[in-house]
Amino acid sequence: MCQLLGMNCNTPTDICFSFTGFQARGGGTDVHRDGWGIAFFEGKGTRLFLDPQPSCDSPVAELVRHYPIRSLNVIAHIRKATQGPTGLENTHPFIRELWGRYWIFAHNGDLLDYAPEFDGSFMPVGQTDSERVFCHLLQSLRQRFPRGMPERIALHSALDAFAAQIRPFGQFNFLLSNGDYLFAHRSTELHYLIRQAPFAVAHLKDEDVSVDFSEVAGNSDRVALIATQPLTDNEIWLPLPVDRVALFFEGAFFAGNVSAPDVLAGA
Amino acid sequence: MCQLLGMNCNTPTDICFSFTGFQARGGGTDVHRDGWGIAFFEGKGTRLFLDPQPSCDSPVAELVRHYPIRSLNVIAHIRKATQGPTGLENTHPFIRELWGRYWIFAHNGDLLDYAPEFDGSFMPVGQTDSERVFCHLLQSLRQRFPRGMPERIALHSALDAFAAQIRPFGQFNFLLSNGDYLFAHRSTELHYLIRQAPFAVAHLKDEDVSVDFSEVAGNSDRVALIATQPLTDNEIWLPLPVDRVALFFEGAFFAGNVSAPDVLAGA
Repeated sequence: MCQLLGMNCNTPTDICFSFTGFQARGGGTDVHRDGWGIAFFEGKGTRLFLDPQPSCDSPVAELVRHYPIRSLNVIAHIRKATQGPTGLENTHPFIRELWGRYWIFAHNGDLLDYAPEFDGSFMPVGQTDSERVFCHLLQSLRQRFPRGMPERIALHSALDAFAAQIRPFGQFNFLLSNGDYLFAHRSTELHYLIRQAPFAVAHLKDEDVSVDFSEVAGNSDRVALIATQPLTDNEIWLPLPVDRVALFFEGAFFAGNVSAPDVLAGA
Repeated sequence: MCQLLGMNCNTPTDICFSFTGFQARGGGTDVHRDGWGIAFFEGKGTRLFLDPQPSCDSPVAELVRHYPIRSLNVIAHIRKATQGPTGLENTHPFIRELWGRYWIFAHNGDLLDYAPEFDGSFMPVGQTDSERVFCHLLQSLRQRFPRGMPERIALHSALDAFAAQIRPFGQFNFLLSNGDYLFAHRSTELHYLIRQAPFAVAHLKDEDVSVDFSEVAGNSDRVALIATQPLTDNEIWLPLPVDRVALFFEGAFFAGNVSAPDVLAGA
């Protein structure tokens, strides 16, 4: 299977520390050798770095680890192929445009006998179930809101309904962002952590690297991190609720289809 | 204005040498400081590196210059902003998916009073005339061929007709690729060169760097390069015909809507 990493913040933040641990799992400390990718939103624009080779050996991953790109929303993925061969067109995250906004999607799981009908508005380029479900998701959103992007609660509710429709096909852990919001759906495994004041030292699980966030973060900064498996060994990562689409906005966590954040405090 | 660089080959080739000269023009030997980008096709997949800072100072450009990515179709762009502020969402090349294929587009020019009607299938994210015309182009193609990608001659002919419709709005030099073909349209300035056996030494115009292609290229290799301004000073670059969409396929040049290559021999 694969691993997911997401970040959603209230102030542009770089992901170099977390990515260092995540990168090691792509063929170093773990088995996810079939490509990796990361997307950074900067305003409405996005940059997507993809590499079909393992992240632990990738020159592109080395760049990402050392080049601090400050972003409000980041999605990364390391792949262990289940459906579709290793190759650039099957490397997550995937990108499409809907309503004049870029959407970025990464999936961990396996959908079986899943063959949605496409109307041609969003078509998969590669062979993965993941890209297929992303195209299906955007097609559903566009059909439901043909005039443009709805406000947050309606969007969240539509994604919740879509996820419920897909769950019978198999494991469907995903991250989705349009640069404003980061949506996360756990069907089997997905954790989160919210870092905010008072900040402390965090220590990676996969590499002996620490950062003292009290020295680098501003007092009002709030950063939500979402990962398949916790990335640090001295912070408390919480499992996301199963079978619900969670929304992260400005570093706060909204568990279900609600208008107020559920948990503002993190570890 | 901006500068364009394209490469189309019959065998996967890296663009490190040409990019070295092109990168220098992004704020070094020339004035195109408002961002840059490059897209590489690998099969049906594509990787797009974008940076809103000048290419001459960009760590991402340093990576691209030193990391040989072998590709059949490459499109690069350095920007001097005319419409739309500097920012990631206004940085070329742009990417969209149509008919289950990625399309990459970069533009050099300025279209005035150009406000196409969009049906919602492809919407601009940023503020440039360039992204606007790319969305318009894909919308037109989809309307004309709703069932999927037509064969090469029909596609070429549709692009020729579209370009004719846009030319009255202003300068419209562009490069477009779907990973199989590279289309190039010159309204003011665009040159090309075909490298094939017998190969010789090429020397960059913008940096004192040479490569002896007889040592690195295979006998049957054929590489077409397309650039706003010639990149080397000891090879003969030809201007593309004005106001026609040229097609490059497997390193060969097709000037108009024809089925046989016009020029196979280059300098």
